Amino acid sequence: MTADADRALVERLLDGDPRALARTISRVENRSEGYRDVVSALYGHTGDASVVGVTGSPGAGKSTLVDELVGYYRDDGETVGVIAVDPSSPYTGGAVLGDRVRMGSAVGDEGVFVRSMSARGHLGGLSTATADAVKALDAAGFDRVVVETVGAGQNEVDVVRTADTVVVLVQPGSGDDVQMLKAGILEIGDVFVVNKADLDGAARTVADLREMLELRGGEGRTRVGHHGAVGVADERRDDENEDEDDEWSPPVLETVATTGDGVADLAGAVDDHRDHLRQTGRMRDRARSRAAAEIRTLLRQDTADLVEAELRRRGGVEAVAERVADRETDPYTVADDLLAPVQAALDRRQADDDA
Amino acid sequence: MTADADRALVERLLDGDPRALARTISRVENRSEGYRDVVSALYGHTGDASVVGVTGSPGAGKSTLVDELVGYYRDDGETVGVIAVDPSSPYTGGAVLGDRVRMGSAVGDEGVFVRSMSARGHLGGLSTATADAVKALDAAGFDRVVVETVGAGQNEVDVVRTADTVVVLVQPGSGDDVQMLKAGILEIGDVFVVNKADLDGAARTVADLREMLELRGGEGRTRVGHHGAVGVADERRDDENEDEDDEWSPPVLETVATTGDGVADLAGAVDDHRDHLRQTGRMRDRARSRAAAEIRTLLRQDTADLVEAELRRRGGVEAVAERVADRETDPYTVADDLLAPVQAALDRRQADDDA
Repeated sequence: MTADADRALVERLLDGDPRALARTISRVENRSEGYRDVVSALYGHTGDASVVGVTGSPGAGKSTLVDELVGYYRDDGETVGVIAVDPSSPYTGGAVLGDRVRMGSAVGDEGVFVRSMSARGHLGGLSTATADAVKALDAAGFDRVVVETVGAGQNEVDVVRTADTVVVLVQPGSGDDVQMLKAGILEIGDVFVVNKADLDGAARTVADLREMLELRGGEGRTRVGHHGAVGVADERRDDENEDEDDEWSPPVLETVATTGDGVADLAGAVDDHRDHLRQTGRMRDRARSRAAAEIRTLLRQDTADLVEAELRRRGGVEAVAERVADRETDPYTVADDLLAPVQAALDRRQADDDA
Repeated sequence: MTADADRALVERLLDGDPRALARTISRVENRSEGYRDVVSALYGHTGDASVVGVTGSPGAGKSTLVDELVGYYRDDGETVGVIAVDPSSPYTGGAVLGDRVRMGSAVGDEGVFVRSMSARGHLGGLSTATADAVKALDAAGFDRVVVETVGAGQNEVDVVRTADTVVVLVQPGSGDDVQMLKAGILEIGDVFVVNKADLDGAARTVADLREMLELRGGEGRTRVGHHGAVGVADERRDDENEDEDDEWSPPVLETVATTGDGVADLAGAVDDHRDHLRQTGRMRDRARSRAAAEIRTLLRQDTADLVEAELRRRGGVEAVAERVADRETDPYTVADDLLAPVQAALDRRQADDDA
């Protein structure tokens, strides 16, 4: 696409055109040419949406609960964008409003935009694609953005970190709790929900969760608000312990998504958490940590791309490896030689900056 | 160190001075200044040693078996260097000949050099440090190099990939087999050894292993000879299937390391495998794949270092993230801005090369 066409796309998205939004997210997913400029152009228009991440094991009832939450926000007059990161999703682009049958209630409602993103095949990393899609929804003016993802590993943890508030769903009596501890999900939850609260064992699961969160609190709660890259979180740890009264105590709620019971309480807890973040200045901390993590991720990806391109210019890594295997050169000399102009360029700029 | 001192160190190492060798490995481990030039200088003197990797679960008897193997080679008049990668090792540098009590038989024997390397704290990655240490032993003229590591994950898999021949130790009847399958150890074994073959269940374990290897064979045996980076192995897959007769069938041997039973057979199998690699041209394939993996790993590390240094020049990622959080800029603009001179430098070189 030309720069003019890109500018027109951005304008239409900012005007709330759902097709421009769908097209933008497709470009983000496919990293198609010029997508970076599009995201850059949108960036200044972001920051107004309230972003909620919803995660939990498969079968915990995430989709149904998200549907109910969307309905709640709509009844309240708010517009909602949903990014559903689904490992089994057949949608890899082009899927727009109503791309999931279960969101049938939202079909025809311009105040809702639902988009499935496949967890597979993201060259630039799933978390980057998700973060950019959230920005597109934010810039398009949605009041709420919901990111739904299966809580199954680091990838998903990275994904929900794009949210201001992370809601963790737990299924009663499934031994889910221990598994979640392993995956580090307990650490990133701001609000916990025991869904299917009408099932046997729900009260027990609620009690277990509260006990674990209590234990976490007893360890200094250093991980609360842990967002963004690990290094960044570590740097922030001291600040966060400065004022113990500012700590957020993650509530454990009960819902029955199929009937809508407890959904209003969940929406209330999400708003409480958002208000807490704003009042304590942590909303800004999270934004900064997120930005730092995004910058690092992008730089890593971009330099990896540069290096791969440079290797291809030299006939591919195999050709270079052949010369190393023949002892004509060695890996360090290859790396130094490849990166010398890079180092020189950075040094030159440094000299210019100093001058 | 000065370049002159480095050259002197390299000369002494090539002359077989064990202190120069110990010092070189310490510099590799600590990535101390100038170590890259030292490794580069050694590279042209490598390729003569026969490198054996020995891996297996804790308690499988690796250390005892390696001791016996070293004794066997010494009795045969060969010199042996040992790199023991030990996650619990307190040695992080300076440990030389006889640094492990159990190698008592080798103390005072100049034909043996033993070095423990800690699995922790390697800035540049354990596999890089191990590969460089192996090169140092190779350049120092040892006939055999043994790399011993706990077979516990990707780190260790990368480590044993520095070897020409990978020996996998299994303990009888421990359910070890299934665990190994998970860790991908079965795929990288060239020779399997059921150690403690005098224990109950040894015959059963041997049979299980043979069955699993048979199954692997039935799937086309595409993974045999799988060394180096995964991408590289994929590229080589077609070549490897071209001639089924060239396939190596990993033998399953039985040893009792504590008595030395079976150690001669093990040494024989290692040599058979080495001969096989040479005759089929696969020794060269492995060397090339290894070189490709080393180049990629180094480039990744080096570019990450460059990026971090550049971020520090700009006041650290936090300062940049602050500006992004304020919407003064965005992650893509930051990344583009940081890497623009790099891209320009690479383009300029390309133009020069074309001219």
